[in-house]
Amino acid sequence: MRSTLNFLLNDWLDVASLTTRPRFADHSRETFESVLDTCERIAREKFAPYNRLSDTEEPHFDGERVHLPQATHAATAAYVGAGMLAAAQDYELGGMQLPCVIEMAANSFFQMASVSMGGYAMLTSGNANLLMAHGTALQKEVFAKNEFSGRWFGTMCLSEPQAGSSLSDVATRAVPDGPEYEADPLGPRFRLKGNKMWISAGEHELTENIVHLVLAKIPGADGKLVPGVKGISLFIVPKRLVDTEGRLTGERNDVALAGLNHKLGFHGTTNTLLNFGEGRFPVRAGQGGGLDGRGAGAIGYLVGEPGKGLSYMFHMMNEARIGVGLGATMLGYAGYEASLDYARQRPQGRPIGPGGKDAAQPQVPIIQHADVKRMLLAQKAYCEGALALELYCARLVDEQHTGQGQSAADAALLLEVLTPIAKSWPSEWCLEANSLAIQVHGGYGYTRDFPVEQYWRDNRLNMIHEGAHGIQGMDLLGRKVVMDGGKGLTLLAGKINETVQRALQRPALAEHANALARALARIGQVTKAAWATGNPQDALANATPYLQAFGHAVLAWVWLDVGARSEQLLADGGDADLLNGKLAAMRYFFRYELPKIEPWLAVVETRDATCRDTEESWF
Amino acid sequence: MRSTLNFLLNDWLDVASLTTRPRFADHSRETFESVLDTCERIAREKFAPYNRLSDTEEPHFDGERVHLPQATHAATAAYVGAGMLAAAQDYELGGMQLPCVIEMAANSFFQMASVSMGGYAMLTSGNANLLMAHGTALQKEVFAKNEFSGRWFGTMCLSEPQAGSSLSDVATRAVPDGPEYEADPLGPRFRLKGNKMWISAGEHELTENIVHLVLAKIPGADGKLVPGVKGISLFIVPKRLVDTEGRLTGERNDVALAGLNHKLGFHGTTNTLLNFGEGRFPVRAGQGGGLDGRGAGAIGYLVGEPGKGLSYMFHMMNEARIGVGLGATMLGYAGYEASLDYARQRPQGRPIGPGGKDAAQPQVPIIQHADVKRMLLAQKAYCEGALALELYCARLVDEQHTGQGQSAADAALLLEVLTPIAKSWPSEWCLEANSLAIQVHGGYGYTRDFPVEQYWRDNRLNMIHEGAHGIQGMDLLGRKVVMDGGKGLTLLAGKINETVQRALQRPALAEHANALARALARIGQVTKAAWATGNPQDALANATPYLQAFGHAVLAWVWLDVGARSEQLLADGGDADLLNGKLAAMRYFFRYELPKIEPWLAVVETRDATCRDTEESWF
Repeated sequence: MRSTLNFLLNDWLDVASLTTRPRFADHSRETFESVLDTCERIAREKFAPYNRLSDTEEPHFDGERVHLPQATHAATAAYVGAGMLAAAQDYELGGMQLPCVIEMAANSFFQMASVSMGGYAMLTSGNANLLMAHGTALQKEVFAKNEFSGRWFGTMCLSEPQAGSSLSDVATRAVPDGPEYEADPLGPRFRLKGNKMWISAGEHELTENIVHLVLAKIPGADGKLVPGVKGISLFIVPKRLVDTEGRLTGERNDVALAGLNHKLGFHGTTNTLLNFGEGRFPVRAGQGGGLDGRGAGAIGYLVGEPGKGLSYMFHMMNEARIGVGLGATMLGYAGYEASLDYARQRPQGRPIGPGGKDAAQPQVPIIQHADVKRMLLAQKAYCEGALALELYCARLVDEQHTGQGQSAADAALLLEVLTPIAKSWPSEWCLEANSLAIQVHGGYGYTRDFPVEQYWRDNRLNMIHEGAHGIQGMDLLGRKVVMDGGKGLTLLAGKINETVQRALQRPALAEHANALARALARIGQVTKAAWATGNPQDALANATPYLQAFGHAVLAWVWLDVGARSEQLLADGGDADLLNGKLAAMRYFFRYELPKIEPWLAVVETRDATCRDTEESWF
Repeated sequence: MRSTLNFLLNDWLDVASLTTRPRFADHSRETFESVLDTCERIAREKFAPYNRLSDTEEPHFDGERVHLPQATHAATAAYVGAGMLAAAQDYELGGMQLPCVIEMAANSFFQMASVSMGGYAMLTSGNANLLMAHGTALQKEVFAKNEFSGRWFGTMCLSEPQAGSSLSDVATRAVPDGPEYEADPLGPRFRLKGNKMWISAGEHELTENIVHLVLAKIPGADGKLVPGVKGISLFIVPKRLVDTEGRLTGERNDVALAGLNHKLGFHGTTNTLLNFGEGRFPVRAGQGGGLDGRGAGAIGYLVGEPGKGLSYMFHMMNEARIGVGLGATMLGYAGYEASLDYARQRPQGRPIGPGGKDAAQPQVPIIQHADVKRMLLAQKAYCEGALALELYCARLVDEQHTGQGQSAADAALLLEVLTPIAKSWPSEWCLEANSLAIQVHGGYGYTRDFPVEQYWRDNRLNMIHEGAHGIQGMDLLGRKVVMDGGKGLTLLAGKINETVQRALQRPALAEHANALARALARIGQVTKAAWATGNPQDALANATPYLQAFGHAVLAWVWLDVGARSEQLLADGGDADLLNGKLAAMRYFFRYELPKIEPWLAVVETRDATCRDTEESWF
């Protein structure tokens, strides 16, 4: 994996060029590599050996505390010790001012070694980043800074039992906490009541405190909640109350664990149902007031303005979704490497000669069978292609934040269009890669004696959380490709055309360049046809097949671009095995995968109503 | 499920017409239905409620015995009590002389309710059936009969740790057991030594004895094993020795449990590594001899002739593979029904109107969303289509055994061609259905509080055991469609054309009939193109994509045939919801699925060498 990572960062994305920018001026290719080396080592020593343990020793709740394996404590401590929580932050915050692309690359080692043990840190960074963007100076100082240092970990509390994908139905209430509520230095103080579901890292003893970021609605004067997403505000709700110096006051906030969710995978990350303000831990009864004088309601501090909670969350969503895509990718990659090792070592069967098989000959390693090569090459094409896409998107984040004028604006727009793909594509196809990894192992792949079955289970989550597949499809076809008169799609088409033109210069790539150009033209036509009636019900009836086709076309573009660079380096005497491998994966993608887009596009183009016209009683 | 099963059996396959045949003369549509009623009830009462328990309470070995949940004892006892082990056997054997198609339909209830608890019975029937076909009269009386009565259960011992798909590498040795070995009334007596892997139901206390059917090689005069499959013989190796009256002699045979395999799913069926003849249970030391005078070697009785073991096994393979396909189908079906229930009850989100969504409106059940309907309709098309195919194949088994002349011969040939599809297609697509069932549930689908994640885990096994996907592809493209000058493929094409012609009479089906005719023509062309060089390496390089395309075409044929019948019944005033549902699933299959075959066929047609030309060092 490292050699491919280096190739993508250095030879394809030229990350060293970022060091000419003021923010990254103290960095060099060497400092980037040293961060990667450190993370690779910690992942190898502290995460990978315990990934199975984190699966078999599930978190358990003794009624008082949630227990995690000691290995999870040690692994997260090592991650914190490496300063990775604040990797991208300013120096004065204790950060390393790393580009997002290097931070993501460094995190890929942990996601490959143990995606679920790595979950705590990813959530904490995301939480603190959000506070850096929208919190007050004191909120940053007290909460974000203590998260970046790893003293406290964080969560994101969005979903509720009755409202998963439909955030407009959030029912958690937040009411002002007494007359002096506006004067609290930590932010306007509210009391929250409600239940939050699927909260990862919602309870544990890894850190002395947990900083929950909670979506809730402030009732109007009539006591009613505003329907829709506009009524949603964002609150900081610490598990234990703290003062303005970030010291624990000794008071427990009214946040109670209602239960652990027991899942098919991702066992290493505690997943919880949390009750806010049900009175299990009454807080400041009779002092600051409380709704009913008995101190019910969890204390929460408003972040930013009321009613803007969801927009603050979504502000971080692109990066969060790239993170999910990268996690899915690295699970796929872990399975690819495991099945590659197995295929090299496992003798079974013999080659077919013109006269059939010669049973008197010794068996050969299964990597020599064409069908096993097919399954390995598919995994390689899925996982390396997805990794390239995720790093490309991370590089766009850097461009958005540190690029000049139009370049930054373009990067932001391109990121909007690509994010649904960066989230959904690896969730689907690197899961398929994990299934192929099992298949390569035969019966052994299905047992807990090999790691691939766990990767497959862990990866199944990614197509659901942080915006399910269906939601991503609606976002892409319903918003991203049509917003601003299709400006984002036009921009992407321009980028794809640049690659096509470059590839057409190379005879070996012309066939694929032409195929990509045709695919792009088809996506343009089909997008128009989908919206021809102007009715969202027509257009979006097949949003998921559209997402799948769009994703395959984007990946074909990534592969053609990687292929063109590989050809060039090969001609210049580069690493032949590495580069020929990239070219083989590219060919596989163009011959076996890209042609799949037509069946998906056909139903979008005709606004096929087979599914939506099916009546409930017919099922 | 029952209404679809009734429709397929009665309205589509017309199983009642079988009762005009002498073997089934005592039966009627009523007796068939009464068997189905009984099985449906037992499955509902004794299997389904304990399916999760069989997953969480995995079999464990205390060093002496393997323990299974009490529920498994009760469920298998109820199955035995219903006489289902001998359902298809002659009356004089205690059987019911049921057609295979009814037996399979009856078993589908158990596979849906708990595929892994049902495993013991399926293996036992298969084992005893094989003995009925190839055993001596006494072997049938002593072993098969006691299996049909459920007094003993059976296993199939093929794979070894070093030889999974490659049976020619079986290394278990069988040597004649002393001078009087030929005279043993139970069959020529041998001593076996070797290890057998992945043996389902290889150890348990459900029955007082276990009858292992074991593949092993008899060494030549030079003491060496014959390479290849021709040297393989078949042996009956009971766990406890028995006399000619079927009484236990009190002696334990030298068959030892070396370990339980712990798998991703199918926890309810014990899966074992067995050591034969390692001396853990020395048997008849100093009496009958034994290889080395110390009684080592498990006692086994030869079945049929030496060297024909694999052909005996393969004789039963079609039915075994249809059984696996049916198991995969019913797991898919169970997930479909669970996700359909959930989608009807779970409120979430709102319809998109011309002006977007109105958050002030109450949420709607998710079944009203187009993308959820798509996921449900896909599951319906996969699972009902697969069920139709499996029942069709079972009906062919009946035709092969009880049909007249050419009709029986045709059925046998058609079964040869269809078996790889009947085995592989549901393993792949009903697994995909299970993934969609999880997706419909959102985060809940991923938890152990809902049944769908278990179905998905259980189903992953089916693409591996009883001949992995790659093996099925080689069997189809390497043997089945080319044998006898392509006679099997021609026969299938004729059947498909009959359906096409019938469908062309119905305007609503003409579009699909033409699509199927085109697909069939393409498969003919591509099959020729694959073999154009005559080199198996060229032809078979893409055997798996060929299998996938062929499978989708076969399912399109099944759906068109079911659709034509449904249209006819609808015109005659049949059950509108049921029949419209079939037609919707058919349309889904033709519009969303059948077009997928072209990308698969393209690489076969061009004998694409991308995968096999990829060098090991490039990965």
